Amino acid sequence: MSDTSRIPGRRFLHSPGPTHLPDEVLDAMHRQPMDLADPRVADTIAACESGLRRLLGTGQGEVFMYASNGHGAWEVVIENLLPIGSAVLIPGTGHFADSWALQCEALGRRTVRTPWHEGRPIDPAEVEAVLRADTAHDIRAVFAVHTDTASSVTSDIDALRRAIDAAGHPALFVVDAVATLGALPLAMDAQRIDVIVGASQKGLMLPPGLGFVAVGPAARELSAANPAPRFYWDWTRRVGEQPYRKFCGTPPLNLMMGLQAGLELLFREGIEAVHRRHRVLAGAVHAAVAAWSREGALDFFCTDAAARSVSVTAIRVRDGIDPEAIRRLARERFQVAVAGGLGPLAGRVFRIGHLGDLNAAMVLGALGGVEAALLSLGVPFGRDGVQQAVAWLAREAAD
Amino acid sequence: MSDTSRIPGRRFLHSPGPTHLPDEVLDAMHRQPMDLADPRVADTIAACESGLRRLLGTGQGEVFMYASNGHGAWEVVIENLLPIGSAVLIPGTGHFADSWALQCEALGRRTVRTPWHEGRPIDPAEVEAVLRADTAHDIRAVFAVHTDTASSVTSDIDALRRAIDAAGHPALFVVDAVATLGALPLAMDAQRIDVIVGASQKGLMLPPGLGFVAVGPAARELSAANPAPRFYWDWTRRVGEQPYRKFCGTPPLNLMMGLQAGLELLFREGIEAVHRRHRVLAGAVHAAVAAWSREGALDFFCTDAAARSVSVTAIRVRDGIDPEAIRRLARERFQVAVAGGLGPLAGRVFRIGHLGDLNAAMVLGALGGVEAALLSLGVPFGRDGVQQAVAWLAREAAD
Amino acid sequence: MSDTSRIPGRRFLHSPGPTHLPDEVLDAMHRQPMDLADPRVADTIAACESGLRRLLGTGQGEVFMYASNGHGAWEVVIENLLPIGSAVLIPGTGHFADSWALQCEALGRRTVRTPWHEGRPIDPAEVEAVLRADTAHDIRAVFAVHTDTASSVTSDIDALRRAIDAAGHPALFVVDAVATLGALPLAMDAQRIDVIVGASQKGLMLPPGLGFVAVGPAARELSAANPAPRFYWDWTRRVGEQPYRKFCGTPPLNLMMGLQAGLELLFREGIEAVHRRHRVLAGAVHAAVAAWSREGALDFFCTDAAARSVSVTAIRVRDGIDPEAIRRLARERFQVAVAGGLGPLAGRVFRIGHLGDLNAAMVLGALGGVEAALLSLGVPFGRDGVQQAVAWLAREAAD
Amino acid sequence: MSDTSRIPGRRFLHSPGPTHLPDEVLDAMHRQPMDLADPRVADTIAACESGLRRLLGTGQGEVFMYASNGHGAWEVVIENLLPIGSAVLIPGTGHFADSWALQCEALGRRTVRTPWHEGRPIDPAEVEAVLRADTAHDIRAVFAVHTDTASSVTSDIDALRRAIDAAGHPALFVVDAVATLGALPLAMDAQRIDVIVGASQKGLMLPPGLGFVAVGPAARELSAANPAPRFYWDWTRRVGEQPYRKFCGTPPLNLMMGLQAGLELLFREGIEAVHRRHRVLAGAVHAAVAAWSREGALDFFCTDAAARSVSVTAIRVRDGIDPEAIRRLARERFQVAVAGGLGPLAGRVFRIGHLGDLNAAMVLGALGGVEAALLSLGVPFGRDGVQQAVAWLAREAAD
Repeated sequence: MSDTSRIPGRRFLHSPGPTHLPDEVLDAMHRQPMDLADPRVADTIAACESGLRRLLGTGQGEVFMYASNGHGAWEVVIENLLPIGSAVLIPGTGHFADSWALQCEALGRRTVRTPWHEGRPIDPAEVEAVLRADTAHDIRAVFAVHTDTASSVTSDIDALRRAIDAAGHPALFVVDAVATLGALPLAMDAQRIDVIVGASQKGLMLPPGLGFVAVGPAARELSAANPAPRFYWDWTRRVGEQPYRKFCGTPPLNLMMGLQAGLELLFREGIEAVHRRHRVLAGAVHAAVAAWSREGALDFFCTDAAARSVSVTAIRVRDGIDPEAIRRLARERFQVAVAGGLGPLAGRVFRIGHLGDLNAAMVLGALGGVEAALLSLGVPFGRDGVQQAVAWLAREAAD
Repeated sequence: MSDTSRIPGRRFLHSPGPTHLPDEVLDAMHRQPMDLADPRVADTIAACESGLRRLLGTGQGEVFMYASNGHGAWEVVIENLLPIGSAVLIPGTGHFADSWALQCEALGRRTVRTPWHEGRPIDPAEVEAVLRADTAHDIRAVFAVHTDTASSVTSDIDALRRAIDAAGHPALFVVDAVATLGALPLAMDAQRIDVIVGASQKGLMLPPGLGFVAVGPAARELSAANPAPRFYWDWTRRVGEQPYRKFCGTPPLNLMMGLQAGLELLFREGIEAVHRRHRVLAGAVHAAVAAWSREGALDFFCTDAAARSVSVTAIRVRDGIDPEAIRRLARERFQVAVAGGLGPLAGRVFRIGHLGDLNAAMVLGALGGVEAALLSLGVPFGRDGVQQAVAWLAREAAD
Repeated sequence: MSDTSRIPGRRFLHSPGPTHLPDEVLDAMHRQPMDLADPRVADTIAACESGLRRLLGTGQGEVFMYASNGHGAWEVVIENLLPIGSAVLIPGTGHFADSWALQCEALGRRTVRTPWHEGRPIDPAEVEAVLRADTAHDIRAVFAVHTDTASSVTSDIDALRRAIDAAGHPALFVVDAVATLGALPLAMDAQRIDVIVGASQKGLMLPPGLGFVAVGPAARELSAANPAPRFYWDWTRRVGEQPYRKFCGTPPLNLMMGLQAGLELLFREGIEAVHRRHRVLAGAVHAAVAAWSREGALDFFCTDAAARSVSVTAIRVRDGIDPEAIRRLARERFQVAVAGGLGPLAGRVFRIGHLGDLNAAMVLGALGGVEAALLSLGVPFGRDGVQQAVAWLAREAAD
Repeated sequence: MSDTSRIPGRRFLHSPGPTHLPDEVLDAMHRQPMDLADPRVADTIAACESGLRRLLGTGQGEVFMYASNGHGAWEVVIENLLPIGSAVLIPGTGHFADSWALQCEALGRRTVRTPWHEGRPIDPAEVEAVLRADTAHDIRAVFAVHTDTASSVTSDIDALRRAIDAAGHPALFVVDAVATLGALPLAMDAQRIDVIVGASQKGLMLPPGLGFVAVGPAARELSAANPAPRFYWDWTRRVGEQPYRKFCGTPPLNLMMGLQAGLELLFREGIEAVHRRHRVLAGAVHAAVAAWSREGALDFFCTDAAARSVSVTAIRVRDGIDPEAIRRLARERFQVAVAGGLGPLAGRVFRIGHLGDLNAAMVLGALGGVEAALLSLGVPFGRDGVQQAVAWLAREAAD
């Protein structure tokens, strides 16, 4: 089972990132790069910038891209927005909110946090209360994780915006949309988000290695006035036309070439169609998990049905069941790779990713492989999971 | 539904040829070819020849490869073995036996045929009887289709060999193993087969475009004495070391590079493991079809359970059900491409291919997609098809 | 030197087929194939047919494509056009005319041939004379090789057409354009050619494995009346909409996908631009060979400057020089693969291919590598070959 | 000329990074990634770590890899080694030393610098003098750029090590080997280097996007005691077996898969053979540049022949000649992409990269293309540049 050699056929990648890569993206990356003065480099970067702006629904947001992962992109907003010693409010969403807060603190910033309610989204009232209490406006920004990939719970961005407004607090609104971009609608300008943080390896259907932010005018202004020392991440140094300058050195060219291709795929399918597809496929997974849960050994981690992510579903296992054994068997015997529990959820959940370049048959195969693993391990579950997913998909296709 | 643009994700190819292509094969073909005197060309050809000999279980058989499809490979044996006007016995297996016979006749040869028993394999007794009756030894060869891809019925090669022996007839024994190579064991020398016919696009996990034959000493002798005019297909012209000569012109280089990679995959997995995998996956499909059949609208076309192919399963539909509508919906809505009925079975069956570079999750996804199509169309079927396949796979994995 | 392991970097493929493959073609072939009823298959075939018709300049010609190499495509015209025992005129162009004639005879047809004048194109007057002498119109067709790849001599198609007309002979005019398609203009309808024969691995920038013909109405009529037995090659069986029928079995799908991409590249660049590029690059090679030839050890094989091919240049070597040693060193030490002498020219020439997906820098690198090999072996040659090619290219770029 | 559409054939990439990517690397990256708990991820990372240690000649150095470019890798050593306000000695090598110093200062560190002598390597005596003068041992480290890609001058690492030793100074010795790894020997342990900084896009034959450092025990100790706030770059957080931890989030998986393939290519060829190949190819470029320089308009930027880089050659142009015009024409007309002048050398030089996955024919093609551009623009140059390069290569091949 620890044999790492090739398996026949295709392994089903159902982690919530990295995700399945389309041929078009892989082909675009399977090319010789260009010298940095080649106008094709600037064209590629421009296409990525305008594509991301379109995807994020922003006319005034400026896009900065980095050779980095998502944690690098988090560092970007910390270093650019927060002076050393300043404070940020991070509403509790579980592992990712905790990690972001930890990173802020390690970098010499202070954090204020609202409690995490397991299985539930951010409570906007708590955010409003904290902001109201901050009469000195010590808090510079609210850093909100849209979908916490660890818990598979999606919080309500509009409600958070309203909470900030209701508190009359000037804090910037920063949204980590890493796990939702390309899966769930988000409109930076219309929803009055100051900064959106994203990364390549989820809904954008790219390999990991590219982080980015879209930054509105208020955030750019605040950053310009921020004396915190910074270089690689610094927005003010990344202005100008030269690719070398925009990326503080050599741009991650092949990832950019892939990003251009990935964005084209999204626009060709149509963003609304992409979002609808994610809703339908998430519904199929939810139908299966609902069936599986009947036997009492498994259940949705997210107890609020309306807050269940369209990108990933965390499945709680009863004490005594080892989710890592399920994953190992699903991957090594039945060719389906799902994710495990992170941080406080380690050993308590496994997670099925369902975002990115996926379709109905892929999801059915993944669910079938998980069922085969559950059955092999003697985990009790409602045996009609795939059957319910099939029924859901047939119904949706009829619309 | 006739929109031919890209679908998200990967389409599940479950025709019995072409089949799913592994990355290793695709990558090997994604290379610049070589000039024909490059020793790497000869190395590639030699690797393909020895690999095919190993796969076919022959030490004395010589391999001839062609830029052609399977029908071209049929023409190869007709032109090389049969003088104009001579006779061949083609036992009835359905569409492919009929087509091969038609081709023989169009090329000026005579055919003797045994009747096709729908849903059943070749009856060796009938073959024996025909050969016994041919006291003049007018029949030069028996051309037997191992698995008729149209009917998904596999005939018994050993029994056919015994029938020829029992008749005391000198006819050569030619086996079309196009649909079984890489899926079912076949041992040319041990089973005393004179010629095996194969093609690239099924169990060898290659694109279509390469046909081949392995030819034993008796067949080579008979061919050398055969005055029928021929050039492109002629074995006697294809002898020698030069690639250009071996292929009667430019070899289909990238397909050879792919074949070398495909054979390496088979040997790396282990031929017995490959055969076992095909048995297990076929069992999963059979478990699903058995469940589906409970409602009376669908059934196995092959009524002899022991003769059901490990490569493909033809599913008979009740009158009034259009298998083409099922296929169209499965492909265009649920991303699963299955095959239809050929010749006399057109409109009467659809077929699920399960050979080549496949695994459990892929088969479950394909079955799920077919179920979704059946459900959408209101075809009655036992709803627990995938569930039974999952159960079968979990049981097999436990062994 | 016989080490066949990987070399660093890219080997320069300068044989006149197979040729360098563009990324776009390789990527198009690096895809999963489709089930044969998928409308995408028919779309791909239709795109290839219409693209070839456009490239060949024909509105009324019908395109038939085959899983075969160029020799297979030769067999196509022999089997379809010539009744057994009938006669064809094949003007001498060297190795390829000889080979085609040999194939005709092996297939039971009679050939009439005009003599080959080494280093010179077909003499139209000789063709006219033979046809005038054939008062019984015994000759059914003229099979002319446009560019004989072995000699690198291109004959004048318009002059041949005029010769046939002048003779008042009804013979069909069949042109083998394998080595010129995509490199040199050819207009089937305007130049009144009855059949054009092509293959994938040269100017179309594909791997070998696909042969094709475009067939005008007179040729189709003649074929329909031809009683010669045939099946795989038979045009009359390949009519209809079904892919399976059009290809007498499984179409070579990935090659078709590549052909579609290759044709798109040609049309995107513009056919006239493609032809101009071939003229310019051939001029660069010719400039280098002219310089090399000053020392008396090397020379153009084609003595008629106007008949030198834009696709390939055969270079005669003085007695005592082994062209195979040059090739081996060029390939194994300097990463440039050139071709050798075929048939009567074996050991007498080497050949530099300059057709397909090539540009100035590639040609300069190839010429440089050949120079390094010549120098290493002590072959006398004008040392300013690349310098003259550079001068030619700079001059052409200025236009 | 600003048309950015496809050119026929392959563009020759002769910038000193990004460099030409081998098929093996591209193919390794053209794969689906894995879920992060898949043991194949850990295997890939382990193979990269041990391969880099082998390449860098270190048993005790620990490797840290980052989703970042080379400037990110610079930030890594700054943030880990230097407390805020501490000092570092950066010997002048031109643009890259200046940039690194600027980055140190922007991040709140102090820099001490020795002057840059245009066209010459670092003077070890100056380094020794500065260190001797620093009796308080205020300087924590020496940051030396091995080859300054902008000037194409390589400094002597052993001489620098001796200078530090001679000064009896405890400063750490940090070497930026971005432009030399895989081209020039470097042995971390034997040469007593404390930290080596590298990146993916040059001699390692990968796309840009991966930075790395190898860190010896003294540097790790110093880092552990360094209170400077840091997170993404922090070595102490990147310890442990989990891929997610080692990369502070999602590893850049496909780049790692490519790195593993690239390292395998280097070891398969043999590191010494790789280094020899770089010396030979650099010699060919130098032979051409020496010839070009005879006319007085062009010359080596590096005036110290022994210090000329094996990776890149900067070519000074006479006043009145625009190197950007040369580059543009070379790229857009003759398909050869070379680099331009950076920082103080902008408009004064162009640069030919000759490192990575290159061979003789590629270099000859690149030189030929540059000659065609020079000729087209009327730049005076010795016309026998390629000829001299050919002669050099033939001579070297004879050894």
